[in-house]
Amino acid sequence: MPKNFTIKRNNIDKILNTHPFSYNPDDQEHLKEECGVFGIIGNSEAAAHTVLGLHALQHRGQEGAGIISCDTEKFYKHMAFGKVGDKFNKASIIKSLEGDSAIGHNRYSTSGGQKQIANIQPLFAEMGCGKMALAHNGNLTNAVTLRKQLIKTGSIFSTTMDSEVVIHLLATSKKGNVTDCLIDALTQVQGAYSMIALTPEAMIGVRDPHGVRPLMLGMLDGAYILCSETCALDIIAAEFVREIEPGEMVIIKDGEIQSLKPFEKAPSKFCIFEYVYFSRPDSIINDRSLYNARKNMGIELAKEMPVGADVVIPVPDSGVASAIGYSQQSGIPFELGIIRNHYVGRTFIEPTDSIRHLGVKLKHNANKPIIEGKKVILIDDSIVRGTTSRKIVDMVRAAGAKEVHMRISSPPTIGPCFYGVDTPTKDKLLASRMSVDDMAEYINADSLSFLSVDALYRAMGETKRNNDMPQYCDACFTDEYPIEVVDKNSNRAIEC
Amino acid sequence: MPKNFTIKRNNIDKILNTHPFSYNPDDQEHLKEECGVFGIIGNSEAAAHTVLGLHALQHRGQEGAGIISCDTEKFYKHMAFGKVGDKFNKASIIKSLEGDSAIGHNRYSTSGGQKQIANIQPLFAEMGCGKMALAHNGNLTNAVTLRKQLIKTGSIFSTTMDSEVVIHLLATSKKGNVTDCLIDALTQVQGAYSMIALTPEAMIGVRDPHGVRPLMLGMLDGAYILCSETCALDIIAAEFVREIEPGEMVIIKDGEIQSLKPFEKAPSKFCIFEYVYFSRPDSIINDRSLYNARKNMGIELAKEMPVGADVVIPVPDSGVASAIGYSQQSGIPFELGIIRNHYVGRTFIEPTDSIRHLGVKLKHNANKPIIEGKKVILIDDSIVRGTTSRKIVDMVRAAGAKEVHMRISSPPTIGPCFYGVDTPTKDKLLASRMSVDDMAEYINADSLSFLSVDALYRAMGETKRNNDMPQYCDACFTDEYPIEVVDKNSNRAIEC
Amino acid sequence: MPKNFTIKRNNIDKILNTHPFSYNPDDQEHLKEECGVFGIIGNSEAAAHTVLGLHALQHRGQEGAGIISCDTEKFYKHMAFGKVGDKFNKASIIKSLEGDSAIGHNRYSTSGGQKQIANIQPLFAEMGCGKMALAHNGNLTNAVTLRKQLIKTGSIFSTTMDSEVVIHLLATSKKGNVTDCLIDALTQVQGAYSMIALTPEAMIGVRDPHGVRPLMLGMLDGAYILCSETCALDIIAAEFVREIEPGEMVIIKDGEIQSLKPFEKAPSKFCIFEYVYFSRPDSIINDRSLYNARKNMGIELAKEMPVGADVVIPVPDSGVASAIGYSQQSGIPFELGIIRNHYVGRTFIEPTDSIRHLGVKLKHNANKPIIEGKKVILIDDSIVRGTTSRKIVDMVRAAGAKEVHMRISSPPTIGPCFYGVDTPTKDKLLASRMSVDDMAEYINADSLSFLSVDALYRAMGETKRNNDMPQYCDACFTDEYPIEVVDKNSNRAIEC
Amino acid sequence: MPKNFTIKRNNIDKILNTHPFSYNPDDQEHLKEECGVFGIIGNSEAAAHTVLGLHALQHRGQEGAGIISCDTEKFYKHMAFGKVGDKFNKASIIKSLEGDSAIGHNRYSTSGGQKQIANIQPLFAEMGCGKMALAHNGNLTNAVTLRKQLIKTGSIFSTTMDSEVVIHLLATSKKGNVTDCLIDALTQVQGAYSMIALTPEAMIGVRDPHGVRPLMLGMLDGAYILCSETCALDIIAAEFVREIEPGEMVIIKDGEIQSLKPFEKAPSKFCIFEYVYFSRPDSIINDRSLYNARKNMGIELAKEMPVGADVVIPVPDSGVASAIGYSQQSGIPFELGIIRNHYVGRTFIEPTDSIRHLGVKLKHNANKPIIEGKKVILIDDSIVRGTTSRKIVDMVRAAGAKEVHMRISSPPTIGPCFYGVDTPTKDKLLASRMSVDDMAEYINADSLSFLSVDALYRAMGETKRNNDMPQYCDACFTDEYPIEVVDKNSNRAIEC
Repeated sequence: MPKNFTIKRNNIDKILNTHPFSYNPDDQEHLKEECGVFGIIGNSEAAAHTVLGLHALQHRGQEGAGIISCDTEKFYKHMAFGKVGDKFNKASIIKSLEGDSAIGHNRYSTSGGQKQIANIQPLFAEMGCGKMALAHNGNLTNAVTLRKQLIKTGSIFSTTMDSEVVIHLLATSKKGNVTDCLIDALTQVQGAYSMIALTPEAMIGVRDPHGVRPLMLGMLDGAYILCSETCALDIIAAEFVREIEPGEMVIIKDGEIQSLKPFEKAPSKFCIFEYVYFSRPDSIINDRSLYNARKNMGIELAKEMPVGADVVIPVPDSGVASAIGYSQQSGIPFELGIIRNHYVGRTFIEPTDSIRHLGVKLKHNANKPIIEGKKVILIDDSIVRGTTSRKIVDMVRAAGAKEVHMRISSPPTIGPCFYGVDTPTKDKLLASRMSVDDMAEYINADSLSFLSVDALYRAMGETKRNNDMPQYCDACFTDEYPIEVVDKNSNRAIEC
Repeated sequence: MPKNFTIKRNNIDKILNTHPFSYNPDDQEHLKEECGVFGIIGNSEAAAHTVLGLHALQHRGQEGAGIISCDTEKFYKHMAFGKVGDKFNKASIIKSLEGDSAIGHNRYSTSGGQKQIANIQPLFAEMGCGKMALAHNGNLTNAVTLRKQLIKTGSIFSTTMDSEVVIHLLATSKKGNVTDCLIDALTQVQGAYSMIALTPEAMIGVRDPHGVRPLMLGMLDGAYILCSETCALDIIAAEFVREIEPGEMVIIKDGEIQSLKPFEKAPSKFCIFEYVYFSRPDSIINDRSLYNARKNMGIELAKEMPVGADVVIPVPDSGVASAIGYSQQSGIPFELGIIRNHYVGRTFIEPTDSIRHLGVKLKHNANKPIIEGKKVILIDDSIVRGTTSRKIVDMVRAAGAKEVHMRISSPPTIGPCFYGVDTPTKDKLLASRMSVDDMAEYINADSLSFLSVDALYRAMGETKRNNDMPQYCDACFTDEYPIEVVDKNSNRAIEC
Repeated sequence: MPKNFTIKRNNIDKILNTHPFSYNPDDQEHLKEECGVFGIIGNSEAAAHTVLGLHALQHRGQEGAGIISCDTEKFYKHMAFGKVGDKFNKASIIKSLEGDSAIGHNRYSTSGGQKQIANIQPLFAEMGCGKMALAHNGNLTNAVTLRKQLIKTGSIFSTTMDSEVVIHLLATSKKGNVTDCLIDALTQVQGAYSMIALTPEAMIGVRDPHGVRPLMLGMLDGAYILCSETCALDIIAAEFVREIEPGEMVIIKDGEIQSLKPFEKAPSKFCIFEYVYFSRPDSIINDRSLYNARKNMGIELAKEMPVGADVVIPVPDSGVASAIGYSQQSGIPFELGIIRNHYVGRTFIEPTDSIRHLGVKLKHNANKPIIEGKKVILIDDSIVRGTTSRKIVDMVRAAGAKEVHMRISSPPTIGPCFYGVDTPTKDKLLASRMSVDDMAEYINADSLSFLSVDALYRAMGETKRNNDMPQYCDACFTDEYPIEVVDKNSNRAIEC
Repeated sequence: MPKNFTIKRNNIDKILNTHPFSYNPDDQEHLKEECGVFGIIGNSEAAAHTVLGLHALQHRGQEGAGIISCDTEKFYKHMAFGKVGDKFNKASIIKSLEGDSAIGHNRYSTSGGQKQIANIQPLFAEMGCGKMALAHNGNLTNAVTLRKQLIKTGSIFSTTMDSEVVIHLLATSKKGNVTDCLIDALTQVQGAYSMIALTPEAMIGVRDPHGVRPLMLGMLDGAYILCSETCALDIIAAEFVREIEPGEMVIIKDGEIQSLKPFEKAPSKFCIFEYVYFSRPDSIINDRSLYNARKNMGIELAKEMPVGADVVIPVPDSGVASAIGYSQQSGIPFELGIIRNHYVGRTFIEPTDSIRHLGVKLKHNANKPIIEGKKVILIDDSIVRGTTSRKIVDMVRAAGAKEVHMRISSPPTIGPCFYGVDTPTKDKLLASRMSVDDMAEYINADSLSFLSVDALYRAMGETKRNNDMPQYCDACFTDEYPIEVVDKNSNRAIEC
């Protein structure tokens, strides 16, 4: 057994003094989605359906969740840290959320200092134009600047969220009605947003002009639903109607839906990483199955980066779909060579390198009989910091692999996201600091290859990337940011 | 969308009034292991390693866990309901478990009435022959009879566990030392047991003469380890030494190990269901990879019960390994046609049929693009009650499957277990009430087939089952019980 | 034993279904203070001293407490429901409240619906003029009107507290600095307020022009302290300096104190009920010992309402001081004829009449040997609803009293308070609905007498009440409200 | 302000690092009762009445409480750490305790290490002679010896309580029925016990031959009640019937009560400290009002130890009744010169001297206007360690007292208790280490006097102590132990 897998006695003590058994390889090795949103209007069980919808969207945010419902007069809210299935599962809570309409929000875990109940969405405000609840997926790139201006003119912020800027712009807007005020507010913000707003009479859905984040329209027994992904429709057996378009605002009222296009038209810039990793494999976005998209990435990877080997092994669970594609394309058998311990959730935090080291074994174990003496192709969807990849490779080697070839079903991740994804700073991204060869050495693989940008676009059904006007936001792979980032430096200060 | 997947409004209310979001298809559709055990002696971080070991064995029991450590003089204990990763992860807890030796136990969830901290193992007693902690995996088949006798002669039981009988037999034994007293006690009990005992000087491991449950011997930096499965060695990077043999007792003291065979020799009767479902796929028992055994069952299944279809889909996660085998043997592509929501654990309880109905969707979702218009082979490892299978089939049909063929990688489950597995009574086992044809109709499948008993033995490397002297305990498939069940009727009364 | 003290079997069941053992005679029988405030600047243990100060002021508000500290740059806060001694007693909490200045607030229990952490003070806001924390004791009588105006002009309220109006008036003030903005804001509000504000540089204390609620200035090792009562100085062994005067604003900065009188001068209207019941007996307000004031009320009561009897018995603990006065004046011996169970706190809630009935016995028991066969004078400080008094009288009769004469050491309570005290509506006040004779009959006493308004003023050292310009706010006894109540009807809507 | 009351900055930090705000002057300054017991049979609301009874007996034990009920077939139990009013107040808990009979137990706080739920009574066991629950007030003086013997012969103890010895003696008794087995068991134990046992058919009450601890018989609507004090009858409006006599065993079955005197007759040795401090003032024991007994002690104290002074001030609450007696006898006015903060319970623990120092101010405050410039007589019931007394005296001096004369209404406490009271070891008892003069100096009083032993007996209605055959157990005052203490040294080892 290789030396670096022994838990040294001295280390254990150190580990225990920090955060024993807290870790999350995914958190380190994947970019993180920040939010999921769900709303329904016109259903007598609005809150119960919202709970189910948020449960289905749990992968988009596990720190906490909130629901605000409305009975056309009063609003009711419940906010909690923790998983939806644990914190919204009491009948008493669901019954307390009265009314035929409700919106909800899953929040991703962020740095400890800001963990306060006030920072859980939906936001709520009573304004001159009326009462409104608001749930936001995305990130505003000029929030800090706007916040400073608003404070100067008398607005008082009660959270550190970028989304609160929208509420204050609304409250201080001079327009005549809620819709116009909201349009007025959104015209001033920049960035990515898929939002659901709830007033006593209507539910409003809106996507930023570039449509960076998804927003789906569904229907259940005549009630309209808005949500981040189609899997949230499936869980309640609702019908998928269509996607809200980039730059579109829909107002749902009295069972009718009205569509506005209030913003200047802009090219669609849907986040390609939603296909690579974020969204659930059983979701469908833009008529494209996420599972099939990932399988296609595996197929393209096998074409572009073939390697003679005995077995294709996915890093669970993020590499499974592309590994199946790789296996089918290459004819090399797909096997579960790494076993995941399901009693460890996604939400643990690895505070230190030494715990991350232990972390891999707490979550994964090598399936030795599958690996021993074999040439192994390991498939994962991306490499962020590289620490987990290195340990996975070491673990596979320790189990007796003759060769380990790492294949990544997306291009190297070189740029942080400013549009609603929690990413390390650029200097923490392995691919922004090293060549692919150096990365291979760093993670201790016999070979390492990434999918090319064009192959990624081919997996998405395009011929190739249109470099003049890219079909997607792929800034994390190309460093080309389609929306100006006004508050780049001060960004994190207010947890935008 | 078929009518029976709509959440009726009336129903939701009823659901919420009972146990919203509490459910567990696995709990209904699989037999349940009752315990995992782990012990280590001669390591200054004994408790920390025991926590890690129990984490690796969490699948064998999720209701609660306990650890007792010893510093050659005093014993220290911590017991808790809940997962090891949640309840034993504080440095303060681990530090409080002082000493160079420790044993621990994972306990499976049982009926609510008995949920009390006193029922979490290891047991501990101060006796005439000294102090001892004891952890037991298995079930004693004459515990009720022995308990009655012991109470009559003055013993006072403080738990409702069958294992406590052993402690009282020990305490009242007239033999001269701990080992002899323990042998004296075990000579009086019948049934299945893999036990770890801890005294101030020694750790003792023992398996019943038939060796129904597993018990492994490992070593880490000179410290001996006993544990249920090899995956608990892997997590701490310990070496696998050998299995404790059926009827063997090992005494580990001062870094030395002594082996005794104190019981009358009996034929080996290892539980074949450990291979079918219980043990972790990355464990190795009797030199046989669990993952490969399951893949072999899938291969045998494809040979024995072929069907023309477009896609092989596992019921996650229990059917994955055999589905890979089935796909490789049949050439029909393996795809993830059912997506599991990882935010739902194994431990939820489905109290009513109506919740079970909802349950499938909370835990699983059909991956529609993979299923729509296809002839589907669904692979699972077993059918217990059949309710989950029916809903899975319905879900797959609702997603547009043209045909649904269910293939089960083990024979029909017709008999309850009395050797340490929590099974429904015989009348609740679908296969004991119905023909395979009727079961197919019940679960709404176009066809349903099980693996034959002989094919199961072939997957295990045997030519066929030796009907005169079966190589394994397969009572759940054959109704042939290798160990007499003295207290069959009153069994559950004391939660044996 | 009289019939109405038997716990009927049927009733118990009913009781248990509502709120078993939840009750509070005081809550029913006494007007309730709404807040206590404490602040300190210039002490390296600011937060620890604030915790101690709030503990001493716990009687002014038991629902929850909050502390905000400042290290001249950043603010730190901790808010919690529950008692200070339970929720602020961890070193980690106190250490997290860094800095040399801190202010805190005790909050009184209010109706359930509004129980949310956002409603615990101090309030905090970042404004154009800087950051500020604010703690308020009192009630603003035009808060609803102001709130509506502010919302119309774009302010967003994040609590339902009247005090938040001040913050928004501050934020939207056009004045040049914090002090001027605060004066500008307070000039617009009406009602009662003793406030402590904390900015990065200064602590500010201010009392409304009538000085309805107390505010004390103290000093400890050169650090200035502001607090509601002197008992909060005693607990940290701080020196009492002087009272903040009605209409005075003090600004404490760099160890210096500056006094302003920014408001139009108004007659002093200190709340006389602070002397009757609210403040702690060991506090001193306006050079007058609370304990002695209450004893004097008992002495005046003995003079004005004498009765031949064997024993003077206080209703514990509110009647003790006046009972001692009554006994000393009348020469009738003082005895503890009613024993209080100390394991029942002030904060329990009696939801129904039937529980209130049981409540008296849970909290009090008659000391039978002291009462049996005696003519008893019962002394209490006030009667609000009368239900507790009736049960106390019945309990004393059941213990064998020959006669029961109730004497109340204040005048009949006929008016609700709009200046910071939680009172029942007028129709719930027994004295506003009944003559004293009817009240006597209602509470089942042989006689009942109240102290006259003039005698109350004599006990306070005045010759009599100056009816043209009363020396105190005595609205609850006289229905004469010294400060206009603009939002009388909508008052409770925003929990002012 | 005297120097020793300043909270030094350095100290605060130290205090916060240990147990901020945890303290209990009473715990240090008073001997502690260890248990209260309550039982009822023949009432359909048996558990609810037991909860109320235990609430009334809360002063006898605040660490935890337990109730076991029986419906003539099954037993139901609930155990909890904390106060009865907090932990037994849910309808669901009370409803779960089914049946017409129930017994309960209040447990006093003991050292942390032993705090485990298994150590909360009542005990329960299934034995050859049947099932039984048992609640014990008192202490067995040969429990360690018996425990060792029982372990040797095969008994397994599941708690560290002395009371469990009785259960094992019962279980191993060869007698023919429960009553005979219980008598057999009790004949072997020595020490103090007032016990209530519950079987499916009967409730049994028994007092040791000396009758050290109280046990009362009451009746409510035909149901019999056994309890430690009469105040537990008052709370449920039950009738007092009589006391169980020393050495008496009563068996209550089918509404009938049978009295046995199974033990050798012994002189009555009721604990005189129950009159001095333990029992509630509204209880009556042996026809004697506790309140009046304490007042008499104050009267005797005034006769025996007069002093010219301006005011008599009780240390609240333990000195109140005797201070009233002292005041009435001496003619010096009684005043509340020390105010108690009711938000601090009896159960806090003062871990260190420095916290004890702070403790007094957290719990008590001097009422300066009553004290300043006065000659003060302070009255308390006893001095145990003296640390609290010293701080009280200092606090009174700091408030300006001209002279402080401490008068204690019992003799010096010189001996620990072995009969059920938690006392410091002899060397921690101030009076066993110092002369009264030295104690006066130690506590910084101008004079200090105790009641003489004979005067204490006079207060109890005796002419004087009968030194040949003392009428009470007064070992804590005289060092004369009426019952042999077999396990004196090892006593605490098993938490007897």
